[in-house]
Amino acid sequence: MKFYDCSTAPSPRRVRIFAAEKGIALPTVQVDLRNGEQFSEAFRAINPDCTVPALVLDDGTVIADAVAICGYLEELHPDPPLIGSTPLERAAVTALNRQIERDGFLAAMDAFRNTAKGLKGRALPGPHDYEQIPELAERGRTRVENFFRAMDARLADREFVAGDRYTIADISSQVLIDLAGRAKLNVPDECANLRRWHAAASARPSAQA
Amino acid sequence: MKFYDCSTAPSPRRVRIFAAEKGIALPTVQVDLRNGEQFSEAFRAINPDCTVPALVLDDGTVIADAVAICGYLEELHPDPPLIGSTPLERAAVTALNRQIERDGFLAAMDAFRNTAKGLKGRALPGPHDYEQIPELAERGRTRVENFFRAMDARLADREFVAGDRYTIADISSQVLIDLAGRAKLNVPDECANLRRWHAAASARPSAQA
Repeated sequence: MKFYDCSTAPSPRRVRIFAAEKGIALPTVQVDLRNGEQFSEAFRAINPDCTVPALVLDDGTVIADAVAICGYLEELHPDPPLIGSTPLERAAVTALNRQIERDGFLAAMDAFRNTAKGLKGRALPGPHDYEQIPELAERGRTRVENFFRAMDARLADREFVAGDRYTIADISSQVLIDLAGRAKLNVPDECANLRRWHAAASARPSAQA
Repeated sequence: MKFYDCSTAPSPRRVRIFAAEKGIALPTVQVDLRNGEQFSEAFRAINPDCTVPALVLDDGTVIADAVAICGYLEELHPDPPLIGSTPLERAAVTALNRQIERDGFLAAMDAFRNTAKGLKGRALPGPHDYEQIPELAERGRTRVENFFRAMDARLADREFVAGDRYTIADISSQVLIDLAGRAKLNVPDECANLRRWHAAASARPSAQA
């Protein structure tokens, strides 16, 4: 097994935290996104989508998506469950995680990638170049603010995002909040529940992964 | 079990096709999105995100996401497998399906929702109003065209999107291509593999679901 990573990128960080919470050590290769290594012939042969993370299994199969990799690791190492132990738990956590991806993660990506100076002409990851759209960055900022407020309300009576245990939905939320911070979108002071939760998530050893 | 649906909307159609392929009859309630029924008090009590699909289980649990619902149905009714029968199959199909969602489904949504006259001020589903962004519609069109070409190449040596059997990745692709058609984005003549595949998918009885 080989994990293609980039230590500064948010998507592979989701997998690093997930693996750390399970105590799984992934043999890791760094891909230098800043210098365009993802577009090299060598990396395209691994993942033609030119993105990380990608997990290459011993039989050569490539799983090139953060959540699909997490699902695979969960099946191989069910404890502690970070998605769920029953069909119903898995469905509820998957639905929540996908909502967080849509309303939070993608919005933070829109805010960040459509303004970052180093990403001019690279507003989306992948093999194609797309120009930044300032209005989309602005919409992303508004959406992240709406997301902060919705999560703050959700966490009023929950220790973790999905309820009483830590799940992949916490990991997605943590990584997107840290990404939003890079676009100077910080959790507002009045979102006390979300700030309490984020401090607790950030204090877990896995947050260093 | 009760399935909250809207017969004209693409996301619940993914679940309808999935259920039809498995021979599952879902007791269904239509939500009138055109007349704003998703914003009613009654529907907000079911899904505060104001979106369909939503599956309400007998114990009151709500699963409000198309792919999470499909995953739940797959666990309850494993045959025929539309996601996978092994951890590796599930990971590969999940990664592919998510790539299709990112590069195809979201792009078609961007193209459609940012131009449709009936969706002015409603460029995204959910409880918040966002204005249409013409540049985002344009980017969506370009991305869908890139997606058509990538899928055409993928289908050169595969009967189905994931390989030799029909999966959820075929369903996502079919629904997004039909949605793109509503934004006058049709599969180009030169994409013969994709046209062959789309004709075959559309001829399955489930396509009527």
